[in-house]
Amino acid sequence: MADWKNLDTLDSFAELSAKKKVILKDVMSGDGGASRVKSYTVPMASGLSYNYAAKAVDDEIIEALAKLAKEAQLTEKFAELYNGEVINTGEKRLVLHHLTRSQLGNDVVKDGVNKREFYVEQQKKIESFANDVHAGKIVNGAGEKFTTVVQIGIGGSDLGPRAIYIALENWARQTGNFNMEARFISNVDPDDAAGVLQGIDVAHSLFVLVSKSGTTLETLTNESFVKDALKKAGLDASKHMVAVTSETSPLAGNSDYLAAFFMDDFIGGRFSSTSAVGGAVLSLAFTPEVFARFLNGAAAEDKLAANEDVKENPAMLDALIGVYERNVLGFPSTALLPYSQALSRFPAHLQQADMESNGKSVNRFGEFVSYPTGPVLFGEPGTNGQHSFYQLLHQGTDIIPLQFIGFKESQLGVDVDIQGSTSQQKLCANVVAQIIAFASGKDDENNNKKFSGNRPSSIIVGKRLTPEAMGALLSHFENKIMFQGFLWNVNSFDQEGVQLGKVLAKKVLAHETEGALKELSDLFEI
Amino acid sequence: MADWKNLDTLDSFAELSAKKKVILKDVMSGDGGASRVKSYTVPMASGLSYNYAAKAVDDEIIEALAKLAKEAQLTEKFAELYNGEVINTGEKRLVLHHLTRSQLGNDVVKDGVNKREFYVEQQKKIESFANDVHAGKIVNGAGEKFTTVVQIGIGGSDLGPRAIYIALENWARQTGNFNMEARFISNVDPDDAAGVLQGIDVAHSLFVLVSKSGTTLETLTNESFVKDALKKAGLDASKHMVAVTSETSPLAGNSDYLAAFFMDDFIGGRFSSTSAVGGAVLSLAFTPEVFARFLNGAAAEDKLAANEDVKENPAMLDALIGVYERNVLGFPSTALLPYSQALSRFPAHLQQADMESNGKSVNRFGEFVSYPTGPVLFGEPGTNGQHSFYQLLHQGTDIIPLQFIGFKESQLGVDVDIQGSTSQQKLCANVVAQIIAFASGKDDENNNKKFSGNRPSSIIVGKRLTPEAMGALLSHFENKIMFQGFLWNVNSFDQEGVQLGKVLAKKVLAHETEGALKELSDLFEI
Repeated sequence: MADWKNLDTLDSFAELSAKKKVILKDVMSGDGGASRVKSYTVPMASGLSYNYAAKAVDDEIIEALAKLAKEAQLTEKFAELYNGEVINTGEKRLVLHHLTRSQLGNDVVKDGVNKREFYVEQQKKIESFANDVHAGKIVNGAGEKFTTVVQIGIGGSDLGPRAIYIALENWARQTGNFNMEARFISNVDPDDAAGVLQGIDVAHSLFVLVSKSGTTLETLTNESFVKDALKKAGLDASKHMVAVTSETSPLAGNSDYLAAFFMDDFIGGRFSSTSAVGGAVLSLAFTPEVFARFLNGAAAEDKLAANEDVKENPAMLDALIGVYERNVLGFPSTALLPYSQALSRFPAHLQQADMESNGKSVNRFGEFVSYPTGPVLFGEPGTNGQHSFYQLLHQGTDIIPLQFIGFKESQLGVDVDIQGSTSQQKLCANVVAQIIAFASGKDDENNNKKFSGNRPSSIIVGKRLTPEAMGALLSHFENKIMFQGFLWNVNSFDQEGVQLGKVLAKKVLAHETEGALKELSDLFEI
Repeated sequence: MADWKNLDTLDSFAELSAKKKVILKDVMSGDGGASRVKSYTVPMASGLSYNYAAKAVDDEIIEALAKLAKEAQLTEKFAELYNGEVINTGEKRLVLHHLTRSQLGNDVVKDGVNKREFYVEQQKKIESFANDVHAGKIVNGAGEKFTTVVQIGIGGSDLGPRAIYIALENWARQTGNFNMEARFISNVDPDDAAGVLQGIDVAHSLFVLVSKSGTTLETLTNESFVKDALKKAGLDASKHMVAVTSETSPLAGNSDYLAAFFMDDFIGGRFSSTSAVGGAVLSLAFTPEVFARFLNGAAAEDKLAANEDVKENPAMLDALIGVYERNVLGFPSTALLPYSQALSRFPAHLQQADMESNGKSVNRFGEFVSYPTGPVLFGEPGTNGQHSFYQLLHQGTDIIPLQFIGFKESQLGVDVDIQGSTSQQKLCANVVAQIIAFASGKDDENNNKKFSGNRPSSIIVGKRLTPEAMGALLSHFENKIMFQGFLWNVNSFDQEGVQLGKVLAKKVLAHETEGALKELSDLFEI
């Protein structure tokens, strides 16, 4: 059994903290800089690679990070996780999202069920359902084909599937893998559902209701909203609704739904994109094959995360460098900057995955830790961000570590040549230019035009954003978050911090308020 | 003339820093908390109000902030700005975006032109053009009406207009103010333009090219991309393109465009939503009247920003509290959390407006400052965020000040009653519950379920998100940013930090690279 210890009790962390700091500006200059770019790189799956040349590390620090990985038993802990130990100690649950796409270790059998087989079975059920919808075997009340799929879910049931849909939508349209337009309803704000319903043809829409417990307030409210609209249009709601839920939820085995696909308590919402939560909507919008390719990319990347050697384990190395930046260098936030418009909502998904997992002050034993844990994560696609918040990243008073993503080729292959280069070349030229601008800076006698440099970044370089590459990217960040949770010794798989707001909101709706809460409720005339 | 001094040289700042800190948990409890909610509020325009009851301030600190406002001469500086002084000292320019919607002071005449008249003239030209398009007087080559308007622009030419379009789209559809679907092309990533073009009917699309200088690389590249697509469809591009630019740009007086609408050097990109940059696309998508109503909201809010009394000047008070949080309490980031799905991209716009304006290390005289300036700003709409990053906001190791926005009524008025309350009531109940959860926390014998509280927030409360309310919101935050720039003594109106990346990207495209930059370029096979 692995030994769970606080980061600041590890000898290797003290050693790491004492290491001489790297002046990025210096190490990135001249031949040294060139050789860093060549050697500070780790291969990933699906033709991606993780390059950390522009991070404030050197061979000595990498060695210290490797020691830290070893002392913190990162690979052992990951092995315990994928072999079915109760890693989510707060909720006393296994953590099995990796099993939705691969099996890295032993069979995981829980309550007599082989969990890998269970997840594969759900995927097969979705495949068959989606194929029937696409073939016109499952149709609406008038016997017509469905053209639109609407996911109703919030948080993990929304952000991941939505980000991946946006990432692959244009690619799927172009490659003949597109079957149904997808839309998403998430917010309890009635304008969200009303706005989506205003823009679709409900008679030809299939609604996928996603709630593990079957009790999520926002989702059930939006379901009623949609059922109301279906009824007003003279339609039979049960012919338009599908559920993704757990087998024990009120939504399972319920004749209100055309079909139900299952997940379970061992798939956290923010890690559920590769389960039926992502599977239903993505298989319907695209094809089951596209979803399978996406899972294959994630599976291949998971495999690398099991490697002991940090130089063969990009997620672990990325995690370690992030902890070094947070706990030794003291940077409180990080930006995720994909140079790909298709990844426009991937930062919003990782914002949840990261901040909800590691935004904790208490360790796995319920003791307060005395070091910072999860940072603020934000981001927008480049080059857009360059014309937005990059001013602060370059010349602001704080240093914000950056995580770039870029692809050699565009997704759609449609391009124009202007001033001797294609748009894709301009896009790539911009991301590499930014890396050097941030790292090396530029002197100027006018302080206003001076760039101090020493602003660290990493980059994941890919060939093209395919379903496999998307799967690998998702797995990389999921596993990075997991390793950072291990290092901070927090439980990355619960979210107790969301409870108090729910309890107080119920009180407000029941008019059981006093003091400031009552006055605030009055402001809104609730 | 106002006296421009660094924040840390002001006596009132030293006084403020020495004030006893407020324990939010304590002051928000009981009758004291209730009376704070009632009294710590400032009326805004268009039926909005700014409530700061849950900020870590009290009467003494507010008094100290008022002194700071006075010593920093905030209203005098604003008056200099709207009366046409060269406030953008780096670029030696006036700062006139307020004049696009109101005139707060003297006539501003520059190079013989009355600038208020100039901006109004542009608005009238747009009004007449949009009316002609809507009436079918300006049509495509086949004599058919345009159905779609596509804005081609990046940064300030994209984020603000896009956020406002999204904010008012459903409202406009419902109220009969909707004329044309709007789309946006911004990124130099060719997949952005290709994706948008894949989804529209180019033959019935009008493209609005927005570039003040007429030289923005991304925008010109995307223009070529679009012209290529028009040509391939056998269409005459000059019958589909409109320019928004400065009178001296190559795009002005050019027969390649159906019409040109002008802005000038005194309208910064990130403050240009109320100029022709927002005016053209919003007047075409909705109606010129909707755009005028939006400007009226901004004008009314601007007027409040000229008030000397901080308790009658919500933008100034908000700015002062933000500086107190950044420079006295030491919080490095802030989250903007609108409880309105329609405002889903407003945080992205303010991320630019705020971080590009005040992410500076150098004061107005080119000297490095020794205090933190602009914070990281991020955000997503609630309740979605509650199911995403709120875990970290509640229980993370860092405190992140929050800025909520909420409305009593939904925009569309379509709602359902579930479990005794409407969706809108649930939405409002959630935002007030969050304010108290963050401020007051909750004790628990299980540390994992403990909420430390003392996490400050403010809220802007409105009746309904109308064009006027949207204008008031935009003005509030623009003026807040301006006042914070005055306090930090930085030039909020230039953006030298974006230059270095551009220079290096050009080098990469010209293959004039060496060292790390060359190796990185090789990674992308540029």
